[in-house]
Amino acid sequence: MHYKISSENHIFSFTKDNKPVLFVKDGDEVEIETLDCFSNQIKSNNDRLESMDWNKVNPATGPIYVEGTKEGDVLEVTIKKIEIANKGVVATGKDLGVLGDLMEGLYSKVVDIKDGKVIFDEKVSLPIKPMIGVIGVSPKEGNINCGTPGSHGGNMDTILIGEGAKLYLPVFVEGALFALGDLHAAMGDGEVGVSGVEVAGSVTVEFRVLKNFKLSNPMVKTKDVTATIASDESLDKAVKISVHDMAKLFQSFTKLSIEEIATLFSIAGNVQISQVVDPLKTVRFSLPNWVLESYGIVF
Amino acid sequence: MHYKISSENHIFSFTKDNKPVLFVKDGDEVEIETLDCFSNQIKSNNDRLESMDWNKVNPATGPIYVEGTKEGDVLEVTIKKIEIANKGVVATGKDLGVLGDLMEGLYSKVVDIKDGKVIFDEKVSLPIKPMIGVIGVSPKEGNINCGTPGSHGGNMDTILIGEGAKLYLPVFVEGALFALGDLHAAMGDGEVGVSGVEVAGSVTVEFRVLKNFKLSNPMVKTKDVTATIASDESLDKAVKISVHDMAKLFQSFTKLSIEEIATLFSIAGNVQISQVVDPLKTVRFSLPNWVLESYGIVF
Repeated sequence: MHYKISSENHIFSFTKDNKPVLFVKDGDEVEIETLDCFSNQIKSNNDRLESMDWNKVNPATGPIYVEGTKEGDVLEVTIKKIEIANKGVVATGKDLGVLGDLMEGLYSKVVDIKDGKVIFDEKVSLPIKPMIGVIGVSPKEGNINCGTPGSHGGNMDTILIGEGAKLYLPVFVEGALFALGDLHAAMGDGEVGVSGVEVAGSVTVEFRVLKNFKLSNPMVKTKDVTATIASDESLDKAVKISVHDMAKLFQSFTKLSIEEIATLFSIAGNVQISQVVDPLKTVRFSLPNWVLESYGIVF
Repeated sequence: MHYKISSENHIFSFTKDNKPVLFVKDGDEVEIETLDCFSNQIKSNNDRLESMDWNKVNPATGPIYVEGTKEGDVLEVTIKKIEIANKGVVATGKDLGVLGDLMEGLYSKVVDIKDGKVIFDEKVSLPIKPMIGVIGVSPKEGNINCGTPGSHGGNMDTILIGEGAKLYLPVFVEGALFALGDLHAAMGDGEVGVSGVEVAGSVTVEFRVLKNFKLSNPMVKTKDVTATIASDESLDKAVKISVHDMAKLFQSFTKLSIEEIATLFSIAGNVQISQVVDPLKTVRFSLPNWVLESYGIVF
């Protein structure tokens, strides 16, 4: 089945208390309309961040209840299509992002998106590379603001989560309660100024429920690489978690010793930064798909 | 002039007390022979890390005195050629690297390098991508073990420092006192197991002395990107330093406001991990060269 949901159905935190806006089955496809990370409040350069309602940031459209999904399963989300608006917003400011110590006040700028490019200024236009900033499921208990990443996914701001990618999320509650939002037309690893090119848009995803393996944290697979994703207050700890998660995957699928795994990872794998500003930081550990396939790791 | 120096001329720390083994001029080229990071002590799988002399790790060949070079200058080092041996060593062990908590004892394995590939095992052969692990100049005071990275360069283990790259090093003492070693046939970002594919070899470099701009930390330029490099005990701090260094470069070459710089960096730049095991950790902030060139940043 193919469904469509509007961005009017959105949440500002992931929690099992959110009422599902759609019930789908394994194999169903949903076209999900999204607001931008400022709930579309900044429409022109006359709209100021200072006068914006900050309770309305990082909306995610959903949640969607995936039938037959239980705690301990893995939800595979194939990102089939991303469409984005023709205007985006870039923003930064005092105490925001890595250079926030050098600024006074808040800053935002509306940029045009035209012919596959973001027009940053008269000198630089960047090729668009649409991706999803916020994407996740409900945690087991409590609620997690959509601005924060974690084991449930959330605001991971990971550039690999774009068209064609498959995201794997551990499921903590019945039905998973999936939602997404915060599209970026383009973003660099780190998102050092605190925003990407923030845009409204829509994303078409397909769901599959996996019972045959376990995950502690999200994992993403593109056409080239598979990456375990981890978030923590410190990048150093996030690195440790992401590499250990990939080691667990290898230990469950292969007979390689931990020494073989460590040396293989050291020469073939890449620890990469997704974002450093959310305020938990997100790291991913990537390996080429052909390396996993050489050892028969297929899920 | 073209010179050649043998790996017999090596040091285990960067310090102004090291006696130069060669004097060269701006524009000269040197072919530098290097030992591997274990001083070639592991030649076969019978040679054990446990019985190795650990005072002889991370040798760098040099130092080379570059005439006319003073404190405050920048030394540009063009890496013209890297040749590597046909055998390498991978190593890991208890408390070494990101997975060291899961191991007992030390582990090393000699691997063949054949037809442009590292033969890891019967399933996986990786394309070689030779790079330089240790490369730097003398600090102003004291001595820094060749196993440690810093503002002077040293054990940065940055995969961008390969054939064709230009490395920019701040100069702290007269003559710079340049040295390099610790070649890798291949390595992943992070070097999570504590070693790359460690090899002996030789590197041909050309020196140029730059008086027209200042650097606080190393910077590298490949055919595609320019990256500021920073090392610190915490990745989080290293991120901050690398991004601030790139911002300083933009502020000295352009009239962009800090807000424009921060948003540009956020959408066009990538914070990337070089290594997390040396024991200071190394991060780089990369921007496409065409972005710098669009703003007239040429040095």
